[in-house]
Amino acid sequence: HQSLPAGYICRPLQVDDFNRGVLDVLSVLTQVGGTTKQDFEARFNEMLAIKNTYFIVVFVNKNDRVIAVGSVIMEKKFIRSCGTIGHIEDIAVAKSEQGKSIGKKLIDVLTHIGEQQGAYKVILDCSDSNVKFYERCGYKLECNMMAIRF
Amino acid sequence: HQSLPAGYICRPLQVDDFNRGVLDVLSVLTQVGGTTKQDFEARFNEMLAIKNTYFIVVFVNKNDRVIAVGSVIMEKKFIRSCGTIGHIEDIAVAKSEQGKSIGKKLIDVLTHIGEQQGAYKVILDCSDSNVKFYERCGYKLECNMMAIRF
Ligand SMILES: CC(=O)N[C@@H]1[C@@H](O)[C@H](O)[C@@H](COP(=O)(O)O)O[C@@H]1O
Ligand SMILES: CC(=O)N[C@@H]1[C@@H](O)[C@H](O)[C@@H](COP(=O)(O)O)O[C@@H]1O
Repeated sequence: HQSLPAGYICRPLQVDDFNRGVLDVLSVLTQVGGTTKQDFEARFNEMLAIKNTYFIVVFVNKNDRVIAVGSVIMEKKFIRSCGTIGHIEDIAVAKSEQGKSIGKKLIDVLTHIGEQQGAYKVILDCSDSNVKFYERCGYKLECNMMAIRF
Repeated sequence: HQSLPAGYICRPLQVDDFNRGVLDVLSVLTQVGGTTKQDFEARFNEMLAIKNTYFIVVFVNKNDRVIAVGSVIMEKKFIRSCGTIGHIEDIAVAKSEQGKSIGKKLIDVLTHIGEQQGAYKVILDCSDSNVKFYERCGYKLECNMMAIRF
Protein backbone atom coordinates (compact mmCIF):
# COMPACT_ATOMS: atom_id res chain seq x y z
CA HIS A 1 0.00 0.00 0.00
CA GLN A 2 1.90 2.97 -1.41
CA SER A 3 1.20 6.47 -0.04
CA LEU A 4 0.79 9.65 -2.07
CA PRO A 5 3.98 11.48 -3.09
CA ALA A 6 5.03 14.04 -0.42
CA GLY A 7 2.99 17.22 -0.51
CA TYR A 8 0.17 15.78 -2.65
CA ILE A 9 -3.36 16.08 -1.29
CA CYS A 10 -6.75 14.60 -2.14
CA ARG A 11 -9.81 16.80 -1.62
CA PRO A 12 -13.25 17.69 -3.08
CA LEU A 13 -13.25 19.78 -6.28
CA GLN A 14 -13.37 23.52 -5.54
CA VAL A 15 -14.81 26.19 -7.79
CA ASP A 16 -11.35 27.77 -8.19
CA ASP A 17 -9.80 24.52 -9.47
CA PHE A 18 -10.45 25.94 -12.94
CA ASN A 19 -7.26 27.96 -12.23
CA ARG A 20 -5.36 24.83 -11.13
CA GLY A 21 -5.73 23.11 -14.50
CA VAL A 22 -8.55 20.65 -13.83
CA LEU A 23 -9.78 20.90 -17.43
CA ASP A 24 -6.28 20.18 -18.76
CA VAL A 25 -6.34 16.97 -16.75
CA LEU A 26 -9.79 16.03 -18.14
CA SER A 27 -8.45 16.53 -21.67
CA VAL A 28 -6.43 13.32 -21.14
CA LEU A 29 -9.80 11.49 -21.15
CA THR A 30 -11.79 13.15 -23.95
CA GLN A 31 -12.75 16.46 -25.63
CA VAL A 32 -13.13 19.24 -23.10
CA GLY A 33 -14.18 22.08 -25.45
CA GLY A 34 -13.80 25.81 -24.88
CA THR A 35 -15.18 26.06 -21.35
CA THR A 36 -14.59 29.50 -19.83
CA LYS A 37 -14.15 30.25 -16.15
CA GLN A 38 -17.75 31.52 -16.09
CA ASP A 39 -19.07 28.30 -17.72
CA PHE A 40 -17.09 26.24 -15.24
CA GLU A 41 -18.41 28.14 -12.23
CA ALA A 42 -22.00 27.96 -13.49
CA ARG A 43 -21.75 24.18 -13.96
CA PHE A 44 -20.02 23.76 -10.58
CA ASN A 45 -22.86 25.63 -8.88
CA GLU A 46 -25.56 23.64 -10.75
CA MET A 47 -23.97 20.42 -9.48
CA LEU A 48 -23.68 21.77 -5.94
CA ALA A 49 -27.35 22.84 -5.91
CA ILE A 50 -28.34 19.18 -6.41
CA LYS A 51 -27.46 18.06 -2.90
CA ASN A 52 -25.61 14.79 -2.20
CA THR A 53 -25.39 13.80 -5.86
CA TYR A 54 -22.17 14.98 -7.53
CA PHE A 55 -19.03 14.03 -5.59
CA ILE A 56 -15.96 15.19 -7.49
CA VAL A 57 -12.51 14.54 -6.09
CA VAL A 58 -9.17 15.99 -7.18
CA PHE A 59 -5.55 15.24 -6.37
CA VAL A 60 -3.35 18.32 -6.17
CA ASN A 61 0.47 18.21 -6.31
CA LYS A 62 2.93 20.18 -4.22
CA ASN A 63 2.88 23.02 -6.77
CA ASP A 64 -0.89 23.35 -6.21
CA ARG A 65 -1.80 21.95 -9.66
CA VAL A 66 -4.63 19.45 -10.19
CA ILE A 67 -3.07 16.21 -11.43
CA ALA A 68 -6.07 13.84 -11.20
CA VAL A 69 -9.85 14.14 -11.10
CA GLY A 70 -12.84 11.79 -10.90
CA SER A 71 -16.53 11.77 -9.99
CA VAL A 72 -19.08 9.54 -8.37
CA ILE A 73 -22.68 10.48 -9.10
CA MET A 74 -25.49 9.06 -7.00
CA GLU A 75 -28.68 7.80 -8.69
CA LYS A 76 -31.91 7.10 -6.78
CA LYS A 77 -33.99 4.11 -7.89
CA PHE A 78 -37.28 2.37 -7.09
CA ILE A 79 -35.78 -1.12 -7.42
CA ARG A 80 -33.94 -2.78 -4.51
CA SER A 81 -36.11 -1.15 -1.81
CA CYS A 82 -35.71 2.32 -3.31
CA GLY A 83 -31.98 1.73 -3.52
CA THR A 84 -29.22 4.04 -4.67
CA ILE A 85 -26.28 3.40 -6.98
CA GLY A 86 -23.07 5.30 -7.66
CA HIS A 87 -21.79 5.99 -11.19
CA ILE A 88 -18.03 6.54 -11.40
CA GLU A 89 -17.43 8.96 -14.27
CA ASP A 90 -14.78 11.11 -15.89
CA ILE A 91 -11.63 9.63 -14.37
CA ALA A 92 -8.44 11.32 -15.55
CA VAL A 93 -4.84 11.34 -14.34
CA ALA A 94 -2.30 13.72 -15.90
CA LYS A 95 0.06 11.80 -18.21
CA SER A 96 3.16 12.92 -16.26
CA GLU A 97 1.69 11.53 -13.00
CA GLN A 98 0.78 8.06 -14.23
CA GLY A 99 2.48 5.03 -12.65
CA LYS A 100 2.30 6.43 -9.09
CA SER A 101 -0.86 4.52 -8.04
CA ILE A 102 -2.83 7.76 -8.14
CA GLY A 103 -5.56 6.25 -10.33
CA LYS A 104 -6.03 3.38 -7.87
CA LYS A 105 -6.24 5.82 -4.92
CA LEU A 106 -8.76 7.96 -6.80
CA ILE A 107 -11.00 4.95 -7.51
CA ASP A 108 -10.68 3.76 -3.89
CA VAL A 109 -11.80 7.18 -2.60
CA LEU A 110 -14.75 7.44 -5.03
CA THR A 111 -15.86 3.86 -4.30
CA HIS A 112 -15.75 4.60 -0.58
CA ILE A 113 -17.83 7.76 -1.05
CA GLY A 114 -20.42 5.77 -3.05
CA GLU A 115 -20.63 3.13 -0.34
CA GLN A 116 -20.88 5.76 2.42
CA GLN A 117 -23.69 7.47 0.51
CA GLY A 118 -25.63 4.19 0.67
CA ALA A 119 -25.10 2.69 -2.79
CA TYR A 120 -25.80 -1.04 -3.14
CA LYS A 121 -23.33 -0.99 -6.06
CA VAL A 122 -20.97 1.42 -7.81
CA ILE A 123 -20.62 1.01 -11.58
CA LEU A 124 -18.41 2.38 -14.34
CA ASP A 125 -17.77 2.03 -18.05
CA CYS A 126 -14.34 1.24 -19.45
CA SER A 127 -12.47 -0.02 -22.49
CA ASP A 128 -10.96 -3.51 -22.62
CA SER A 129 -7.52 -2.06 -21.86
CA ASN A 130 -8.70 -0.75 -18.46
CA VAL A 131 -10.46 -3.92 -17.22
CA LYS A 132 -7.37 -5.21 -15.37
CA PHE A 133 -6.83 -1.86 -13.64
CA TYR A 134 -10.42 -1.77 -12.36
CA GLU A 135 -10.18 -5.42 -11.27
CA ARG A 136 -7.26 -4.36 -9.05
CA CYS A 137 -9.66 -1.78 -7.57
CA GLY A 138 -12.20 -4.52 -6.69
CA TYR A 139 -14.50 -4.16 -9.71
CA LYS A 140 -15.86 -7.09 -11.73
CA LEU A 141 -16.86 -7.16 -15.38
CA GLU A 142 -20.67 -7.39 -15.41
CA CYS A 143 -22.02 -6.57 -18.84
CA ASN A 144 -21.94 -4.32 -21.91
CA MET A 145 -22.22 -0.56 -22.24
CA MET A 146 -24.08 0.61 -25.35
CA ALA A 147 -24.53 4.19 -26.55
CA ILE A 148 -26.31 6.33 -29.11
CA ARG A 149 -24.58 9.61 -29.97
CA PHE A 150 -26.19 12.80 -31.32
CA HIS B 1 -43.59 0.72 -37.69
CA GLN B 2 -46.17 -0.97 -35.50
CA SER B 3 -48.48 1.13 -33.31
CA LEU B 4 -49.42 0.43 -29.69
CA PRO B 5 -52.28 -2.02 -29.07
CA ALA B 6 -55.65 -0.20 -28.94
CA GLY B 7 -56.28 1.61 -25.68
CA TYR B 8 -52.64 1.51 -24.53
CA ILE B 9 -51.04 4.81 -23.59
CA CYS B 10 -47.52 6.06 -22.90
CA ARG B 11 -47.07 8.79 -20.28
CA PRO B 12 -44.78 10.03 -17.46
CA LEU B 13 -44.82 8.00 -14.23
CA GLN B 14 -47.40 9.32 -11.75
CA VAL B 15 -47.23 9.03 -7.99
CA ASP B 16 -50.37 6.84 -7.97
CA ASP B 17 -48.82 4.29 -10.38
CA PHE B 18 -47.90 2.37 -7.24
CA ASN B 19 -51.57 1.25 -7.37
CA ARG B 20 -51.29 0.28 -11.07
CA GLY B 21 -48.60 -2.33 -10.45
CA VAL B 22 -45.45 -0.49 -11.52
CA LEU B 23 -43.36 -2.39 -8.95
CA ASP B 24 -44.69 -5.74 -10.21
CA VAL B 25 -43.42 -4.77 -13.66
CA LEU B 26 -39.99 -3.81 -12.26
CA SER B 27 -39.79 -7.22 -10.57
CA VAL B 28 -39.30 -8.69 -14.07
CA LEU B 29 -35.90 -6.89 -14.10
CA THR B 30 -34.51 -7.43 -10.59
CA GLN B 31 -35.28 -7.49 -6.85
CA VAL B 32 -37.80 -4.83 -5.91
CA GLY B 33 -37.96 -5.41 -2.13
CA GLY B 34 -40.80 -4.55 0.25
CA THR B 35 -41.45 -0.97 -0.87
CA THR B 36 -44.62 0.44 0.71
CA LYS B 37 -46.87 3.06 -0.84
CA GLN B 38 -45.31 5.61 1.53
CA ASP B 39 -41.76 4.64 0.50
CA PHE B 40 -42.76 4.89 -3.16
CA GLU B 41 -44.29 8.32 -2.76
CA ALA B 42 -41.30 9.61 -0.81
CA ARG B 43 -38.88 8.39 -3.50
CA PHE B 44 -41.12 9.78 -6.28
CA ASN B 45 -41.08 13.19 -4.61
CA GLU B 46 -37.30 13.12 -4.06
CA MET B 47 -36.82 12.49 -7.78
CA LEU B 48 -39.29 15.22 -8.73
CA ALA B 49 -37.55 17.74 -6.48
CA ILE B 50 -34.37 17.32 -8.57
CA LYS B 51 -35.67 19.21 -11.59
CA ASN B 52 -35.10 17.96 -15.16
CA THR B 53 -33.16 14.89 -14.08
CA TYR B 54 -35.36 11.80 -13.61
CA PHE B 55 -37.63 11.11 -16.61
CA ILE B 56 -39.62 7.96 -15.96
CA VAL B 57 -42.07 6.70 -18.57
CA VAL B 58 -44.77 4.04 -18.25
CA PHE B 59 -47.02 2.23 -20.69
CA VAL B 60 -50.51 1.56 -19.36
CA ASN B 61 -52.91 -0.98 -20.90
CA LYS B 62 -56.64 -0.59 -21.50
CA ASN B 63 -57.36 -1.97 -18.01
CA ASP B 64 -55.30 0.89 -16.53
CA ARG B 65 -52.43 -1.38 -15.43
CA VAL B 66 -48.77 -0.46 -15.89
CA ILE B 67 -47.23 -2.97 -18.32
CA ALA B 68 -43.85 -1.33 -19.01
CA VAL B 69 -41.56 1.19 -17.32
CA GLY B 70 -38.19 2.78 -18.00
CA SER B 71 -36.10 5.79 -17.00
CA VAL B 72 -33.63 8.21 -18.50
CA ILE B 73 -31.55 10.12 -15.96
CA MET B 74 -29.63 13.22 -17.01
CA GLU B 75 -26.05 13.72 -15.80
CA LYS B 76 -24.23 17.06 -16.02
CA LYS B 77 -20.52 16.99 -16.86
CA PHE B 78 -17.56 19.35 -17.27
CA ILE B 79 -16.22 17.52 -20.33
CA ARG B 80 -17.55 18.25 -23.84
CA SER B 81 -18.23 21.96 -23.15
CA CYS B 82 -20.08 21.22 -19.92
CA GLY B 83 -22.10 18.57 -21.75
CA THR B 84 -24.92 16.38 -20.52
CA ILE B 85 -25.55 12.67 -20.97
CA GLY B 86 -28.61 10.48 -20.46
CA HIS B 87 -28.47 7.16 -18.62
CA ILE B 88 -31.23 4.72 -19.61
CA GLU B 89 -32.00 2.63 -16.53
CA ASP B 90 -34.48 0.13 -15.13
CA ILE B 91 -36.23 -0.99 -18.30
CA ALA B 92 -38.94 -3.58 -17.69
CA VAL B 93 -41.83 -4.94 -19.76
CA ALA B 94 -44.40 -7.28 -18.16
CA LYS B 95 -43.82 -10.87 -19.34
CA SER B 96 -47.36 -11.15 -20.76
CA GLU B 97 -46.81 -8.04 -22.93
CA GLN B 98 -43.53 -9.03 -24.53
CA GLY B 99 -43.37 -9.46 -28.33
CA LYS B 100 -45.58 -6.41 -29.06
CA SER B 101 -42.70 -3.99 -29.78
CA ILE B 102 -43.39 -2.22 -26.50
CA GLY B 103 -39.75 -2.42 -25.39
CA LYS B 104 -38.62 -0.80 -28.65
CA LYS B 105 -41.18 2.00 -28.26
CA LEU B 106 -40.11 2.58 -24.67
CA ILE B 107 -36.44 2.92 -25.67
CA ASP B 108 -37.36 5.22 -28.57
CA VAL B 109 -39.29 7.53 -26.23
CA LEU B 110 -36.53 7.60 -23.57
CA THR B 111 -33.82 8.18 -26.21
CA HIS B 112 -35.85 11.06 -27.63
CA ILE B 113 -36.27 12.61 -24.17
CA GLY B 114 -32.52 12.37 -23.58
CA GLU B 115 -31.78 14.06 -26.91
CA GLN B 116 -34.39 16.79 -26.27
CA GLN B 117 -32.83 17.44 -22.85
CA GLY B 118 -29.55 18.17 -24.63
CA ALA B 119 -27.57 14.95 -24.16
CA TYR B 120 -24.61 14.44 -26.50
CA LYS B 121 -25.10 10.70 -25.92
CA VAL B 122 -27.48 8.33 -24.16
CA ILE B 123 -25.94 5.20 -22.64
CA LEU B 124 -27.17 1.98 -21.05
CA ASP B 125 -25.88 -1.29 -19.64
CA CYS B 126 -27.10 -4.65 -20.88
CA SER B 127 -26.33 -8.36 -20.97
CA ASP B 128 -25.08 -10.06 -24.16
CA SER B 129 -28.58 -11.38 -24.82
CA ASN B 130 -29.98 -7.85 -25.16
CA VAL B 131 -27.31 -6.39 -27.47
CA LYS B 132 -29.27 -7.19 -30.66
CA PHE B 133 -32.44 -5.60 -29.26
CA TYR B 134 -30.64 -2.35 -28.42
CA GLU B 135 -28.93 -2.36 -31.84
CA ARG B 136 -32.43 -2.33 -33.37
CA CYS B 137 -33.06 0.77 -31.23
CA GLY B 138 -30.00 2.53 -32.73
CA TYR B 139 -27.47 1.79 -29.95
CA LYS B 140 -23.93 0.58 -30.55
CA LEU B 141 -21.75 -1.55 -28.32
CA GLU B 142 -19.06 0.80 -26.95
CA CYS B 143 -17.32 -0.79 -23.99
CA ASN B 144 -17.56 -2.73 -20.72
CA MET B 145 -19.61 -2.11 -17.62
CA MET B 146 -17.87 -3.06 -14.36
CA ALA B 147 -19.35 -3.01 -10.87
CA ILE B 148 -18.49 -3.40 -7.21
CA ARG B 149 -21.37 -4.54 -4.97
CA PHE B 150 -21.77 -3.95 -1.23
C1 LIG C 1 -14.58 5.22 -15.79
C2 LIG C 1 -14.53 6.37 -16.73
O1 LIG C 1 -13.89 7.39 -16.45
N1 LIG C 1 -15.26 6.25 -17.86
C3 LIG C 1 -15.33 7.37 -18.80
C4 LIG C 1 -16.67 8.08 -18.70
O2 LIG C 1 -16.95 8.45 -17.37
C5 LIG C 1 -16.57 9.33 -19.57
O3 LIG C 1 -17.72 10.14 -19.45
C6 LIG C 1 -16.31 8.92 -21.01
C7 LIG C 1 -16.07 10.13 -21.87
O4 LIG C 1 -16.07 9.75 -23.22
P1 LIG C 1 -16.95 10.55 -24.28
O5 LIG C 1 -16.42 11.96 -24.28
O6 LIG C 1 -16.70 9.84 -25.55
O7 LIG C 1 -18.38 10.51 -23.82
O8 LIG C 1 -15.14 8.09 -21.09
C8 LIG C 1 -15.10 6.94 -20.24
O9 LIG C 1 -16.07 6.01 -20.60
C1 LIG D 1 -30.92 -1.00 -19.71
C2 LIG D 1 -31.32 -1.53 -18.36
O1 LIG D 1 -32.49 -1.56 -18.00
N1 LIG D 1 -30.29 -1.95 -17.58
C3 LIG D 1 -30.58 -2.40 -16.22
C4 LIG D 1 -30.18 -1.35 -15.18
O2 LIG D 1 -30.77 -0.11 -15.49
C5 LIG D 1 -30.69 -1.84 -13.84
O3 LIG D 1 -30.49 -0.87 -12.83
C6 LIG D 1 -30.03 -3.17 -13.50
C7 LIG D 1 -30.59 -3.72 -12.23
O4 LIG D 1 -29.82 -4.81 -11.82
P1 LIG D 1 -29.31 -4.92 -10.30
O5 LIG D 1 -30.56 -5.00 -9.45
O6 LIG D 1 -28.52 -6.17 -10.29
O7 LIG D 1 -28.53 -3.69 -10.00
O8 LIG D 1 -30.23 -4.11 -14.56
C8 LIG D 1 -29.88 -3.71 -15.88
O9 LIG D 1 -28.50 -3.54 -16.00
